[in-house]
Formats: sequence, C-alpha cells, structure tokens
Amino acid sequence: MEQATTAVTSGGLADMDRAELEAFIRELILEREAQTRDPNTLTLIAWGGDLDRIWPTTILATTAAASGMDVAVFFTFWGLFSLVREDKRITGTNWMTKGMSVMNRPSASHAGLSKMNLNGMGPTMMRKLAEKNGVAPPEDLLEMAKELDVKLWPCQMTMDLMGLQREDLIDGLGEPTGAATAIERMKRSAISLFI
Amino acid sequence: MEQATTAVTSGGLADMDRAELEAFIRELILEREAQTRDPNTLTLIAWGGDLDRIWPTTILATTAAASGMDVAVFFTFWGLFSLVREDKRITGTNWMTKGMSVMNRPSASHAGLSKMNLNGMGPTMMRKLAEKNGVAPPEDLLEMAKELDVKLWPCQMTMDLMGLQREDLIDGLGEPTGAATAIERMKRSAISLFI
Amino acid sequence: MEQATTAVTSGGLADMDRAELEAFIRELILEREAQTRDPNTLTLIAWGGDLDRIWPTTILATTAAASGMDVAVFFTFWGLFSLVREDKRITGTNWMTKGMSVMNRPSASHAGLSKMNLNGMGPTMMRKLAEKNGVAPPEDLLEMAKELDVKLWPCQMTMDLMGLQREDLIDGLGEPTGAATAIERMKRSAISLFI
Repeated sequence: MEQATTAVTSGGLADMDRAELEAFIRELILEREAQTRDPNTLTLIAWGGDLDRIWPTTILATTAAASGMDVAVFFTFWGLFSLVREDKRITGTNWMTKGMSVMNRPSASHAGLSKMNLNGMGPTMMRKLAEKNGVAPPEDLLEMAKELDVKLWPCQMTMDLMGLQREDLIDGLGEPTGAATAIERMKRSAISLFI
Repeated sequence: MEQATTAVTSGGLADMDRAELEAFIRELILEREAQTRDPNTLTLIAWGGDLDRIWPTTILATTAAASGMDVAVFFTFWGLFSLVREDKRITGTNWMTKGMSVMNRPSASHAGLSKMNLNGMGPTMMRKLAEKNGVAPPEDLLEMAKELDVKLWPCQMTMDLMGLQREDLIDGLGEPTGAATAIERMKRSAISLFI
Repeated sequence: MEQATTAVTSGGLADMDRAELEAFIRELILEREAQTRDPNTLTLIAWGGDLDRIWPTTILATTAAASGMDVAVFFTFWGLFSLVREDKRITGTNWMTKGMSVMNRPSASHAGLSKMNLNGMGPTMMRKLAEKNGVAPPEDLLEMAKELDVKLWPCQMTMDLMGLQREDLIDGLGEPTGAATAIERMKRSAISLFI
C-alpha cells in the first residue's frame, strides 16, 4: 500500500508501537470497506409512479442527502414517468406508448394514488393535506434533490420500452443507465430500497 | 526500542504475541462494525396497509426477532393505518382525513387486499386459509412483535397528514418519529426493506 | 528488507514483517466478512406477481448473476404464482384456492399489470413493446436465471395458503422454504430487495 504513511513501510515490527499498529489496522479496514460497502451511500429504485410512492422516494432521498449521504435514485418502470416535464401532455413514439401516456398522465405533478385515487380527487386532497402540514410536493422535492446533488438516473430500458425521449424529461438528470449500473452501486450501498 | 511493559497500550510490539495481535485486530473490526453495520439488525418500512403487505411485514419482523435479531418497523403512509385500534371506526381531524378513514377502514384487523379484494370477500377468504394453516392474523402478529421487543415506530409526518392522533393507535408503540431516524437506523442495519 | 531484531520468542511479533502483518489483518477482515456480509450476494423477495414486478425481479436477478453474483429469489404471496407451469390453468386444493387461480390466472406467462391492465390488453402491449426492444419476457428470464444458477425458492407457507403443490410449479426450483431461511440469507447479502 503505497499511500500508507505509517512508519512501518518496511522491516520488522519490533519498532512499531501500538498507535501505529492501530492506525495501520484501521486503514486496512477502511480500504476494504471502500471496496465493499460505503456506510454513507443510499440507492433507491423508484419503480412506482404514484404520488404515494414518489413521496417516500423523494422524502427519503432529500432527507438522506441533507444529512450528508451520497444518494442515487434509479427511476424505472412507472417511476420514470415522474421525471417527465410537467408541460409534456403526451409522450411516446408509437400508438401504444402514446396511448399509455394518455391513460396515465406523466410527470410527478400529475401523479395519481395507488389507492383511493377517486378519479383525481384523492391526489388533490393529499396535496392539500401536505400543504397544510408543510410537506413539499414531490415535484419540489425533486428540485430540492438536484440542489442536494442527489443523482437522478433514468432507466434506459424503460425509456426505450415506454418511448420516452431525453427531451421529454426534466433537466438536471444523470445519463440514462441500466440495471447493471444500479446493481454495482447497490453492492456498495449501506441502504438499498425498491420503492 | 524495547519496553518492559506487557500491556500493548504503549511501547513496541516485540512482546506482543500472535494471539494478542489477533484479539486486537478483531476488536478494531468489531468497533468499526458497530459504527457502520450491525449484522444483527433489521429495519422494515411498512408502507403498505393491505393484508397482503402487513402480513409479510409482521411475519418477517416476528421471525427475525424470534431468532434474536434487533428489529424495528417504521409505519408510514398506508401502513400507519394498520396500527389504529380495532374499535376506532373513524379517524381524522377534518373532513378530508375523516373521509379517508371511512373509505379505507383503519386497523390491521380490517385490512383489505391490494388484489382480489372482492369487496371484502378476498380478505375473509385469506384469513380463513391462514387459520386452517396455522398462520396467525397480522393483528396477533403485531401483539407478538411487541412481546418480542420489536420496535414499532409510527411516522410523525403521516400522523399529521392523515390526522391520526396518538390515542387512535394501539398501545405499546414507540414515540412517533421521522424519516431521518429511520435512515440513521437503516445505515447500520444488515437488512432494510421497503414493504 | 529484513531488519535486525531483538530476541525472537516463539509467537512473538518481532520476526513478523509488514507484509505478513498486512496479510494477517486482511485475512481476519475477510473471515469476519464471510460471517456477516458477503459483498457478492443478492437476495430478492419476489412478492408481486404482476408483469411489472416480475420483470424487475427477473431482470435484476439475471443481470446480477451474469456479472458473477450469487443470487437467490424467494417467491412469496402473489409472486409465487409466477412459478406455476404455463399449462396449469387451475391450481388449489379447495374451492377458495381454486377460485383464486380462476380469478388470478397463474404463471409468469399470464401475468397481468398492477396498473393499466385493461382486461389483458395492457400486458399484451407491454410484451409487444418488450419484443420490439429486445427485452426477454419474464418466463424466458426465469429459464435464463436457472441457467445462471440463480436459486429460485418457493415460499412453503404461501404454497400451503394458496394450495399450490410441488407439481404445479416449474422444474428447476429449490426446495420450498420459509421466512427464517430468507432472513438468514439476507443478513449476509450485500443487496436485499422486496419487490
């Protein structure tokens, strides 16, 4: 280990004292930790696109980032639609993907609820309750996440499947990526959640 | 650089033998582990309030606790309703939150199913099948969890949003808490799941 | 670079050099790691049986296994139905469990969508979009998973509850198992997700 700065770069241990030994052991522990599990890293898979899932996703991401954690969110399947720009009414590259965006209006600003959607009344009520209680809406939490350097990764495969183009999505996102990258990161993450 | 001392708190290492060195290294590894990841700790985020989610939540929590793990469950969003007392028919502090409790009857004892709810017949069938197979209902598993010292934490923000008061909830819960506390605990947990 | 040392007692460290010390420390770190957390291990709980959950489950499992990870998937609740043979139209051991299989057609090949199922048109569209984009259907990904030595574990309790017999399920699965085994494995897994 060339970067070692302890006095034991060579030779026997007779002249090494306990403090040096301790520093050396800690250094090797941290070195291995950096390869295997960074206790300060959080990775979320944002699979769900409903308000009741995008809220926990963005609340966990911003809360963790605000406390100094390194956070990445991988948006896949329904979750990817929450990254669509608010003013994009229809997305898609063929009748099937266009039809989907008509039935399932994209953008976090228009997300429904997985329960008690009540034709849109449920989400409206939830947003009112949130406002009354000082809880920011998910589209604001997404902006906050960007300011806190949360990595927001769109899933490339979902973009292809759902016919979403880069220009359909909000600014400030990372490059579209795949499951392999998400797995590589989760391997080292202290917390990985599928939401 | 020889010293006459036997303790390893100071001096050279010439008088330290392999067993002492090994014990010292293990001690430093465990010390770091306690700060970063406790292999015996499980944290669940109970987001879903349907029978088909509360069941896995309470089965995993009690099974892990019975095997000696330190378990905490953070009840948020729909999941929080499963902590409402069975005899509370209506919860909420205004027409919106009251309306929610009317449409989505609270308490684990009255939980529906996310699929095949069939106007309540699905959950009834599931409970019958469970009884026949010796699987305890979730409200009993919650009691069992308390006896096994599982920490049951209501999410403060959800309580505010949904207008749930402390007296609406069953006894034996921890103090209402927030995402930051849940994240802090998950950082050190061997297993963290969002259910 | 051997250094002249003072008297060497057997078991003493005076004759140990830095390289030996380093190797010894690394060995103890890896030994503890093997007991507590294997950075190469992934465990998934496949709870959902819809196409939009079975897809992420099988994509994550095969992608991780292809990169050399040791992967196990524990199929429970609705997820277990995706392991039913394609040609099994009705499963169950009594009118309740038989009725369930009629309403919720088993097998990954017949999985619906949790949103926009549109009486089966949604899944058909999704499969078409997947085919156009070179994404394998989940039933093929399950076969691929087996070839990549992914462990596929049916949940025993769910089999009992839902009246599923071993002969209803596809070949190449592990022995039916329970929550305790899944927890034991997740304790040592670098990544554990509930899908």
